[in-house]
Amino acid sequence: MKNHLPVVELLKQIREKNPVVHHLTNWVTIYDCAQVVKTLGASPVMAHAREEVADMAGIASALVLNIGTLTPEFVEAMKTAAQTANRKGIPVVLDVCGAGATRLRDQKAFELLDQVRIDILKGNVSEIARMAGEKVRTQGVDAVQVEKDMVALAQRLASQRRMVVVITGKEDIVTDGKTTYLVRNGHPMMGKVVGTGCMAASVIGTFAAVEKDLAVAAASALACFEIAAECAVKKAKGPASFKEKLLDGLFTLDAKVLGRMQKVFLA
Amino acid sequence: MKNHLPVVELLKQIREKNPVVHHLTNWVTIYDCAQVVKTLGASPVMAHAREEVADMAGIASALVLNIGTLTPEFVEAMKTAAQTANRKGIPVVLDVCGAGATRLRDQKAFELLDQVRIDILKGNVSEIARMAGEKVRTQGVDAVQVEKDMVALAQRLASQRRMVVVITGKEDIVTDGKTTYLVRNGHPMMGKVVGTGCMAASVIGTFAAVEKDLAVAAASALACFEIAAECAVKKAKGPASFKEKLLDGLFTLDAKVLGRMQKVFLA
Amino acid sequence: MKNHLPVVELLKQIREKNPVVHHLTNWVTIYDCAQVVKTLGASPVMAHAREEVADMAGIASALVLNIGTLTPEFVEAMKTAAQTANRKGIPVVLDVCGAGATRLRDQKAFELLDQVRIDILKGNVSEIARMAGEKVRTQGVDAVQVEKDMVALAQRLASQRRMVVVITGKEDIVTDGKTTYLVRNGHPMMGKVVGTGCMAASVIGTFAAVEKDLAVAAASALACFEIAAECAVKKAKGPASFKEKLLDGLFTLDAKVLGRMQKVFLA
Repeated sequence: MKNHLPVVELLKQIREKNPVVHHLTNWVTIYDCAQVVKTLGASPVMAHAREEVADMAGIASALVLNIGTLTPEFVEAMKTAAQTANRKGIPVVLDVCGAGATRLRDQKAFELLDQVRIDILKGNVSEIARMAGEKVRTQGVDAVQVEKDMVALAQRLASQRRMVVVITGKEDIVTDGKTTYLVRNGHPMMGKVVGTGCMAASVIGTFAAVEKDLAVAAASALACFEIAAECAVKKAKGPASFKEKLLDGLFTLDAKVLGRMQKVFLA
Repeated sequence: MKNHLPVVELLKQIREKNPVVHHLTNWVTIYDCAQVVKTLGASPVMAHAREEVADMAGIASALVLNIGTLTPEFVEAMKTAAQTANRKGIPVVLDVCGAGATRLRDQKAFELLDQVRIDILKGNVSEIARMAGEKVRTQGVDAVQVEKDMVALAQRLASQRRMVVVITGKEDIVTDGKTTYLVRNGHPMMGKVVGTGCMAASVIGTFAAVEKDLAVAAASALACFEIAAECAVKKAKGPASFKEKLLDGLFTLDAKVLGRMQKVFLA
Repeated sequence: MKNHLPVVELLKQIREKNPVVHHLTNWVTIYDCAQVVKTLGASPVMAHAREEVADMAGIASALVLNIGTLTPEFVEAMKTAAQTANRKGIPVVLDVCGAGATRLRDQKAFELLDQVRIDILKGNVSEIARMAGEKVRTQGVDAVQVEKDMVALAQRLASQRRMVVVITGKEDIVTDGKTTYLVRNGHPMMGKVVGTGCMAASVIGTFAAVEKDLAVAAASALACFEIAAECAVKKAKGPASFKEKLLDGLFTLDAKVLGRMQKVFLA
């Protein structure tokens, strides 16, 4: 069953409201995370000092956490920011970048899930499988295959933790445990560019800043980002020009393109 | 009254002398700050370990500080670097990125102003208003409107602190308290790209490395950067291609383009 | 004497095996280091927390260290990662970025050489001269001229330390003390882009992940990277478009281009 998400409406709201999206993210893709948020029309802010994260989360409309280059101290700052976000009622997105690769990542990802309220958990297939308790061993930050029904796994994890679970891949799975969206946009070139996964989490955070149904927000965000990717790849000559065209395309993305290309289904 | 700044002459000096410009800057735009300095023909160096910042400032011709992703420890390293710069007599630029957004930023920005000599203070309208004691609350790192005569405010702050004050915006204000330049180059697209503000501070630092009149240096730097931006926007399709063309354009910027486009006035 | 390196074969192996290349690198060029590795077909991972570097090195096929934005704590994490790499027998590349500029850099670079096994030492002419005990004073991270026979110096250092020494420059010197390759590809534009030196170290690490003769790996890596640079510069309008085309070009680099352009000699 095909489902039409309010992509155009949400994009319009982002461009009108310019919500502040606070990040505690990794040092590799921090620029791209900020730029993709700004490109959408929102206002990114990256602040990680434990002494100011509560203040910064206090002026934000969404909080995005990413453990890509975590340290124990950095994760403590994430918790402080998330506590403010939780109190204030703004959505918290957690990208469990590299979960399954080291004990530290697993331990800290579970600590975040247990000690603060995560509203949207996002990762690739092996990262989310690890978060659901599977014994996968990821190879760094790239996905490895998992022999599981990932839709069922995502739904179960979403229900258990009462959060939205997002698994990115050829077909993205977005579920709150009840409604499950399958987003079939995107292109393999996204996997050749460092940071598209992190940027996806930032785009999700930006949409979540303006849409209360967080499964709708996340699925709309992914559709939007991946439609821009599909358009970009047509004009790209490799990963670097692809990234440029992806960001340029997101900046001017409109109803015409979005309406024609959206490939979202209900599981 | 229109004023012609020695943009061409200063750019030539930078390209000939290749001054080292030492940065303690933020983790979001650190690459762009380094690249813009190198593009101008100077030699950027980014070093923040407290154990080496004095040595590094010792071989530099200018020091650029930016509190965009500050921590208390990082600010201590800034002070150490600035003390060496002060002793050596090289100019210190401080970009008060995000001042007014959190108590930590305000406190640390004032500490820097009070404990070391800042030669050029740079920020957007709300950041500088905050540094002048106004009760603005900035939304992260993007400017909010301030109902003040910003020229008068900048002049007063410059006189009080005996430094050059730079307010970037549609019309940039550069003043040492006596002479005030209004730079009217630039394009709104600059506001769509993360890091143009930080890069502007690095460009200012680079010009300050070769020109003793720091108001002239800062106004020339902004004119130069913003003329390149005006040229870039004509060929850009969005923020990412704009940034590429901006850096490419700065690399080859010459007297012909600079002379034709410079829009600098005296207040 | 002209020498043909197995560039095509090694590039094929990288694209087939997708080795994990673990980095503890600097914060300026961390994105480009990751992207260049991914562009070649390998899997970059950047992780620096002392609590996880051993685990991460444990799943990697090569380790790349870069002291560009070092702190004492960061160097301790490098040692921990290198100890795992040494035990596991995977190659460790050290880019002594900025050696000769500050006492901290010199001290920490020598500590790394003395306390763990570095398999490939890489730097520009003044950085490597410093590592060989010469009293050069580098200007930040850019090379200064050294009045020495650099081939002899590299060979001596390689023999003393039983490692491969790589000096990048107009003509790159790669030696294990016995065989010395001179790679004559490349273009001065590489020196106008921040991060080409750091990326070169990452490319070397990626080739070293699939080739046991580390001098062959390093020379092949440089030839490959610099041939892509030569192709890129033909279509570039400045440093930013050059970098884009360099990464795009590496992504599709094939036997035809490589075979035609390779300019490697034996000293």
